[in-house]
Amino acid sequence: MKIAIALFPRFTATDAIGPYEILSRLPGATLQFVSADGGILTSDTGFLQVVTEPLDAAPAPEILVVPGGPTAATPVRDPRLLDWVRAAHNTSQWTASVCTGALILGAAGLLRGCPATTHWSDVDQLAGYGADVLPQRVVFAGKIVTAAGVSAGFDMALALAGRISGDAAAMAIQLGIEYDPQPPYDAGCVRKAPAPIRALVEQRMRQAG
Amino acid sequence: MKIAIALFPRFTATDAIGPYEILSRLPGATLQFVSADGGILTSDTGFLQVVTEPLDAAPAPEILVVPGGPTAATPVRDPRLLDWVRAAHNTSQWTASVCTGALILGAAGLLRGCPATTHWSDVDQLAGYGADVLPQRVVFAGKIVTAAGVSAGFDMALALAGRISGDAAAMAIQLGIEYDPQPPYDAGCVRKAPAPIRALVEQRMRQAG
Repeated sequence: MKIAIALFPRFTATDAIGPYEILSRLPGATLQFVSADGGILTSDTGFLQVVTEPLDAAPAPEILVVPGGPTAATPVRDPRLLDWVRAAHNTSQWTASVCTGALILGAAGLLRGCPATTHWSDVDQLAGYGADVLPQRVVFAGKIVTAAGVSAGFDMALALAGRISGDAAAMAIQLGIEYDPQPPYDAGCVRKAPAPIRALVEQRMRQAG
Repeated sequence: MKIAIALFPRFTATDAIGPYEILSRLPGATLQFVSADGGILTSDTGFLQVVTEPLDAAPAPEILVVPGGPTAATPVRDPRLLDWVRAAHNTSQWTASVCTGALILGAAGLLRGCPATTHWSDVDQLAGYGADVLPQRVVFAGKIVTAAGVSAGFDMALALAGRISGDAAAMAIQLGIEYDPQPPYDAGCVRKAPAPIRALVEQRMRQAG
């Protein structure tokens, strides 16, 4: 199982690392981090640098994963990335996104009429690509699977691992990474977070944009 | 707030990236990935390469975080890493570990008589360093905070974020990364996972050792 995770400048690290941590542990999996130019890419915070191969080093992955980041929603997306996503999707077994990575799938034209999800702050943008946006953490639609914001990539990848290798293999990965979450707060989605917390996050995201 | 995450060959990526994702979003935070020699380090799966600075580029972090990995438990740990952990702990405000990173804190002599936790597979080793091992996902003991396996770093870092910057700041980070986990299986800890799943994981961990 060949897996490729496509990075771009200012990617959000966990969007990529969650699926990496789970999918790379599937039996027989190999995984590449790729980007338009290859080389070292820096995450959204500016504090993490990851080494990537050029996109053409992963011409036909069986699973492609597109993470999000504050630049995923902008019109300056690299057309080489969109071309690669389209081509890889043509032959992939699974095409996945996390967070605003769904906007990249949308910009590549893959989500027209397709049920999908994204980070809660970008629902309207995703709908603008013709997606049928569902308020779910993970959405499967044929071979396309999209996840909500950042940390949802763990849940998406575990579900995908189960479909690919069976429940036992997925549960073994879950136990291996001790994924028995116990968040100390219950503010992880907009239905639960107090309104002032949401306002604070939206203000910061506009500043970071 | 200066944060340093100390990597070593074959680190487990999520052990490091979970705390990175949360702590680097604290107001005013800066974060460095460091390692004994600096340069590019490869994760346990072999598929992720991260750029690091040398340890002496982060001589006195206010928060130090030590992730785990299959080499964390071995006697071949780099003495320079242990020396740095000891020195950094002397002046840190918080000293944190995720997963078998606790074994590195233990080998550095920081956990004698100290309540602590680690990955479920390494409880006996941690006790061998004199730690009072608790079956908890996150353990605070003075300024030392330890987390259980891999994904527990998210819960640890969120709790730590709350202590450092207050509940509102921590909840804003939780909402920003949409950390409202919904694992598709309930096999994330040894009390819940079926016995054959545990046996499978233990077999794989011995092979990976």
